[in-house]
Amino acid sequence: MAKQKIILDVDTGVDDAMAIAYAVAAPNADLIGVVNSYGNVLVNQAAKNSLEILDMLGATDVPVFEGQPHSLESNTFEVMEVSEHIHGKNGIGNVELPASSRQVQEQSGVDFMIEAAHKYGKNLTIIPTGPLTNLALALRKDPEIADLIGNVTLMGGALTVPGNVTDAAEANINQDATAANEVFRSKLHDTMVGLDVTLRTLLTKNETKKWRDLGTVAGEKFADIVDYYIDIYAELYPALGGCSLHDPLAVGVACDPSFVQTLDIDLLVHTDEHNYGRTTGDKDHLDDPHPTASAAIQVDEKRYLKTFMEYLNYLFANNK
Amino acid sequence: MAKQKIILDVDTGVDDAMAIAYAVAAPNADLIGVVNSYGNVLVNQAAKNSLEILDMLGATDVPVFEGQPHSLESNTFEVMEVSEHIHGKNGIGNVELPASSRQVQEQSGVDFMIEAAHKYGKNLTIIPTGPLTNLALALRKDPEIADLIGNVTLMGGALTVPGNVTDAAEANINQDATAANEVFRSKLHDTMVGLDVTLRTLLTKNETKKWRDLGTVAGEKFADIVDYYIDIYAELYPALGGCSLHDPLAVGVACDPSFVQTLDIDLLVHTDEHNYGRTTGDKDHLDDPHPTASAAIQVDEKRYLKTFMEYLNYLFANNK
Repeated sequence: MAKQKIILDVDTGVDDAMAIAYAVAAPNADLIGVVNSYGNVLVNQAAKNSLEILDMLGATDVPVFEGQPHSLESNTFEVMEVSEHIHGKNGIGNVELPASSRQVQEQSGVDFMIEAAHKYGKNLTIIPTGPLTNLALALRKDPEIADLIGNVTLMGGALTVPGNVTDAAEANINQDATAANEVFRSKLHDTMVGLDVTLRTLLTKNETKKWRDLGTVAGEKFADIVDYYIDIYAELYPALGGCSLHDPLAVGVACDPSFVQTLDIDLLVHTDEHNYGRTTGDKDHLDDPHPTASAAIQVDEKRYLKTFMEYLNYLFANNK
Repeated sequence: MAKQKIILDVDTGVDDAMAIAYAVAAPNADLIGVVNSYGNVLVNQAAKNSLEILDMLGATDVPVFEGQPHSLESNTFEVMEVSEHIHGKNGIGNVELPASSRQVQEQSGVDFMIEAAHKYGKNLTIIPTGPLTNLALALRKDPEIADLIGNVTLMGGALTVPGNVTDAAEANINQDATAANEVFRSKLHDTMVGLDVTLRTLLTKNETKKWRDLGTVAGEKFADIVDYYIDIYAELYPALGGCSLHDPLAVGVACDPSFVQTLDIDLLVHTDEHNYGRTTGDKDHLDDPHPTASAAIQVDEKRYLKTFMEYLNYLFANNK
């Protein structure tokens, strides 16, 4: 089986870091680039984190790109206080990683996506785990790519449950509802991996201890990063009993769609003030015989977690 | 196969009238009573309409009860202007039906539900197609019935699409979100047949013409009633191309659950001002191994419409 070409679009972020690790480890994924976004951190911090994570995991051949520094609706961006609290000031639990000797690419992340769409077509899957600004901008610049790209599997949104920033909005969509709506309403086929399933997919310190016990740099650093996140989750969501595997679940679903059950439905994103960032079915297109989105509504979290741990254990064991 | 014991809880209403016809016609349903509610009309008008519809359909042995005249949150009720517009001033498209010689039962609708729950237990299905006030009140009066009743299959709510009264709320839930939340959070097993599927299930004048062509009183009166509703839908929702079969779809699903695909999920109803009446999954119970609700998210509308027309044609043909 030919490997899928994968582009991650991340705002690295603790769970983005795990998403990168999953994409590096997954045997049927060929990670051709990591585009960065503002969100959990500023875009240049996200790119710095992505470079250091990739290098620590031995994926020194994966190029790293910067995308947009702010949403389509604004000219500036400041990290929300809650993001800084959840992910740490540097985005990766205030853990210091070995510096990378590599640089961010000169090509913009948006142009890299467009180029890859033309080069790989249906073999390309784009996985945004942050705001959808870069992808929306790529669609504005070259609308043709909507017909070329195989699939977009995104972490974001909440269809059957309330949001986490507001009752309406999940955090990634909330950063740029205009961009998200443009992506959902384009001809791109989107698989939405939202809070509906990521809140059901949890990691605990039982798992991070296994990484730490490997005695490798990668294992220890990842355990430190994710333990920070688990501690914050215990404080913010005591009922949950772990931290959500938001972003790495999206990578898992892109690599193996059978982890989730989906509802095929045309989606839109509300951009009015009252419902800003709410993802819902488009009432006017419920009879569309070929909806452009599949929303994940159920997840086989046990099988996913088993796979997640197999991939990451193997990867961390081999990066001393 | 033993017939299911069915109680309808209606606010009759054009589509409630079709729901009554479906329940009278369905070969595996034993309609043991019609409880009435405020909503599309005042409760006494709903009861009058239900009596006249049942009599016209030859179901003169089905007792009719009055339930609560207003929501749990209020001491009064006035019909909303939009309800009067959609259903007509008398609730059934301003069509006059032959007067019934029967009376409403002295027993309250709430007490009738409680009595039936004890008598029929798991063989009882309650189908509310209006506000959930009567059922919530029955649960308050006798909490034990939550463990007795087989199933509640309700028309109401919107999980994957916006509401129709506000972006948050569907009309039935909007009448009394407190009652709806009490029903959803009880141990009752609820099957929610909401806008997610009813907006996909449409009737046009092609179908009502077939009723009219039967040349019977029932066929002609039902064609008159529903044509009024179809005309209003054409004015309010020109994109839809017909009227929604909201309430009769709930009866259809109660009689044959295979008409829909469902998502098993613990549901709640938001009662705060900002999201009043929104039905969503309960974030804190997403890992519940036995969720108390099944939300219909996909419908086989062609097969349902075929069954609907077979049942109603046969019933109307035999009521001259």
